[in-house]
Amino acid sequence: MTTSSTKVTPTAGLDRAALLLDAFDGPGRLTLAEIVRRTGLPRSSAHRMLERLVQLRWLRRSGRDYELGMRLFELGSLAVHQDRIHQAALPFLHELHRRTGYVVHLAILEGTDVVYLEKICGRFGMGLPSRVGGRQPAHCTSVGKALLAYSPQSVVDRVLAAGLQRKTTFSIGSAPQLHAELGHIRDRGAAFDRGEALTGVSCVAAPIGTENNVVGAISVCGPSNQMKLDHRLAAPVRVAAAGAWRALSSEAMARPSVEHSVA
Amino acid sequence: MTTSSTKVTPTAGLDRAALLLDAFDGPGRLTLAEIVRRTGLPRSSAHRMLERLVQLRWLRRSGRDYELGMRLFELGSLAVHQDRIHQAALPFLHELHRRTGYVVHLAILEGTDVVYLEKICGRFGMGLPSRVGGRQPAHCTSVGKALLAYSPQSVVDRVLAAGLQRKTTFSIGSAPQLHAELGHIRDRGAAFDRGEALTGVSCVAAPIGTENNVVGAISVCGPSNQMKLDHRLAAPVRVAAAGAWRALSSEAMARPSVEHSVA
Repeated sequence: MTTSSTKVTPTAGLDRAALLLDAFDGPGRLTLAEIVRRTGLPRSSAHRMLERLVQLRWLRRSGRDYELGMRLFELGSLAVHQDRIHQAALPFLHELHRRTGYVVHLAILEGTDVVYLEKICGRFGMGLPSRVGGRQPAHCTSVGKALLAYSPQSVVDRVLAAGLQRKTTFSIGSAPQLHAELGHIRDRGAAFDRGEALTGVSCVAAPIGTENNVVGAISVCGPSNQMKLDHRLAAPVRVAAAGAWRALSSEAMARPSVEHSVA
Repeated sequence: MTTSSTKVTPTAGLDRAALLLDAFDGPGRLTLAEIVRRTGLPRSSAHRMLERLVQLRWLRRSGRDYELGMRLFELGSLAVHQDRIHQAALPFLHELHRRTGYVVHLAILEGTDVVYLEKICGRFGMGLPSRVGGRQPAHCTSVGKALLAYSPQSVVDRVLAAGLQRKTTFSIGSAPQLHAELGHIRDRGAAFDRGEALTGVSCVAAPIGTENNVVGAISVCGPSNQMKLDHRLAAPVRVAAAGAWRALSSEAMARPSVEHSVA
């Protein structure tokens, strides 16, 4: 038990916890042996941290397996519930779903991916690869393309530098193709996706924000054979995105600056 | 800067991180001063931990405020996405929503509260106090009462020991009332809530599982003046809960025991 007396700085303990939790990003349940293999942490120290994470309910134990726990779920739900973009957009997402009947997404840009903050859907939505909290490469999705079209050039450069991984044969695969597409999106104020993330599925997205000041995007998705990607379908999506942006802007103006002077 | 050289054990660093994150359970944005006040941690050490949490994206900084970050949201979403009860129940929740048109909830018992794992809803659902990842006292909700009715006596005793906090004038307020109600629920296989969590809102719930082996509950909710709480409304809820239990049981049997022998 040489590690039981090991002393580390507080942030080193935190880094180990992050390393342990990151090991669960993807596969689901893991045994202690698998966690040790994935993290490279000493077995006894990993075990002690895991047991403490179970007590804190950040993980839970099921037999000899560990999996992500309910406290993480509660804090994570709170993170999105308290998110200002999510709060501002939510009524417009429901209204858009009611008006069009399509699956509605709200997404933000994180690095070169989009992360879905919300998904309003019926049964069709269950078959889609998107999920709340999940990621997709930005250039393969309508929400991602809408975000990129209104982002600074440095953001687009980062996506190009990461390589344009293709999800389907229709995904954008070259820099000239991406630049042309982003130009089209700026012209029409909406992004179309014809099977670029998933074959047989089409989407229309609009950005929340203005050029070089975009904070998210809203889309509708449905079966390609039932969706005509034109300005008539883009209109309600643009209305929803504009409504969310207005709500967000007025909320930011109304927020008292008093809280900033407490510290 | 006396604390900069403080050494702590790995789990102590983890405990500090948990203490810091727990401070965000409720209020939303916090300044460093507010966090120091809530946690009792030394200012310099709190600041160092907070900055590391921002780097890890567990928190994010907005001016001088800190708030819960996207990494927590991603891990938390993964926790519920990988949850076996959630996976088993999801198709039945959508089917129940499609059949009844009401808001559909999936909840589990955590201590004396229910935690909502899923909420399938339209606009009406937005006005409800329930949210995914949120809590309510078990005895005030139909899902909670369905869970308690099929839980061991020790669980019910814990709820009674915690005191029966009332959400409305219709909430259950005494031990005899709770015992009688749980008996009725076992008789009819479903729990009714007439404005006990929120005035003007009614719910019908059914347990996922069997007596002393219940893992969750499913409910439908709607405006009290549009819902007749009887066996005809209980029937589709019971069908959904039974379907989820069957899916969960067959999944548990199908799961290879090989993974348990890896460690």
